[in-house]
Amino acid sequence: MRTLKFTIQYDGTDYVGWQRQPNGVSIQELIESALAPIEGGAVTLHGAGRTDAGVHALGQVASATLSNTLAPETIARALNAVLPPAVRILGAEEMPADFHARFSARAKAYEYRIVNAPVISPFLHRYAWHVPYALDIEAMRTASAALRGRHDFAAFQAAGSSVTSTERTILSLTIIADRGSDGSLVVRVTGDGFLRHMVRNIVGTLVEIGSTRRGTSEMPAILESHDRAQAGPTAPPHGLFLTEVTY
Amino acid sequence: MRTLKFTIQYDGTDYVGWQRQPNGVSIQELIESALAPIEGGAVTLHGAGRTDAGVHALGQVASATLSNTLAPETIARALNAVLPPAVRILGAEEMPADFHARFSARAKAYEYRIVNAPVISPFLHRYAWHVPYALDIEAMRTASAALRGRHDFAAFQAAGSSVTSTERTILSLTIIADRGSDGSLVVRVTGDGFLRHMVRNIVGTLVEIGSTRRGTSEMPAILESHDRAQAGPTAPPHGLFLTEVTY
Repeated sequence: MRTLKFTIQYDGTDYVGWQRQPNGVSIQELIESALAPIEGGAVTLHGAGRTDAGVHALGQVASATLSNTLAPETIARALNAVLPPAVRILGAEEMPADFHARFSARAKAYEYRIVNAPVISPFLHRYAWHVPYALDIEAMRTASAALRGRHDFAAFQAAGSSVTSTERTILSLTIIADRGSDGSLVVRVTGDGFLRHMVRNIVGTLVEIGSTRRGTSEMPAILESHDRAQAGPTAPPHGLFLTEVTY
Repeated sequence: MRTLKFTIQYDGTDYVGWQRQPNGVSIQELIESALAPIEGGAVTLHGAGRTDAGVHALGQVASATLSNTLAPETIARALNAVLPPAVRILGAEEMPADFHARFSARAKAYEYRIVNAPVISPFLHRYAWHVPYALDIEAMRTASAALRGRHDFAAFQAAGSSVTSTERTILSLTIIADRGSDGSLVVRVTGDGFLRHMVRNIVGTLVEIGSTRRGTSEMPAILESHDRAQAGPTAPPHGLFLTEVTY
């Protein structure tokens, strides 16, 4: 037996998310089904991040314990030959036996893409949130400072979630604006872990502040409230990309 | 009556091409149908380039003669409100009465996108030709020099076409390689006009030369043969973008 680590890209548009679900096709199910004939038996794949329906990945990582002796690159090629073009295995490598894509992860990076312009390109509408009204980027940057560091992020957790601790550390959060071209706005956030919908709830709140419907000074109070109802709406899934997992 | 000029972007993936056809939905039909209730009657739209099924546009131009008195920007906004997200009106402006998107065009620019890497990103597979084998870019550049200038391009015209003249001028043809990242390769070509499938047949021939299945020195002979059978295969439509029309 050996443990393999897979690096995976996917366009989440047509899937129910990373995790197996009864109501549609998941990325996990697609890859597990493609791995089974290679392994000669059922395979369980552990994903680093359980991306929701419609969320994309540029660098998802998954691990599996396999008994076959094929070279990792051969397995990656065989998977790409049968997977739909919306899912690509970028690489496969052998890891120590105790490697686990989720539990071994030290940090994850997400990118949330916004197009802040009157019209969104036909080539971006599946991959960015279209915000046609003016945004005050500086206000968003000022408000985001309160989120960096270790905090209880309960206010940004999806309602109805149950986890033992809602404390997480945001290692970096930057807002990159390219106003010259098509109004591209990217929120890059790295953390030691994220609660369900946390990035999308943070982005939804930042956009409310950017639209000046809320003041920059409200962010610390929202955070300290630990109350989901105090934060802004959940930004739509199709702007979110899991970009990197660090071990 | 007045003449309007529309600048249009579209993702051609799900359409039969620019021009109205009985066998499916065309971009022309979509926009004409959206214009009709605004105009209060049927509208005929003239496109600068009749892009084929699956071909995309970043800067298609179309003209129409209208009798309504709405501001051009109001018409553009009304069109975007009803068109599918795959088709966007970037702008609308009033032109002299004799302006015609196709007949008034002085030059057109196309971009053909190739991903020359073992694996193509899920986000590019609809928008670039995936060529997984090695390409000799310098050989492609050398061969492309023979195409610049005024020539009879009959060898690169789709079989079965009938036009009065097959002479065209290629004003510029450049190959931009970004080998650092994802193997992106772009063929940019500008001309005073193009025969049916001309850009795709040129790219198909250049890729044959890049794969060293054919020598760079064959290009002048292919051009002078005026025989479609001498040129390479037609590159697939989904790598092609109509980028700009100059007046």
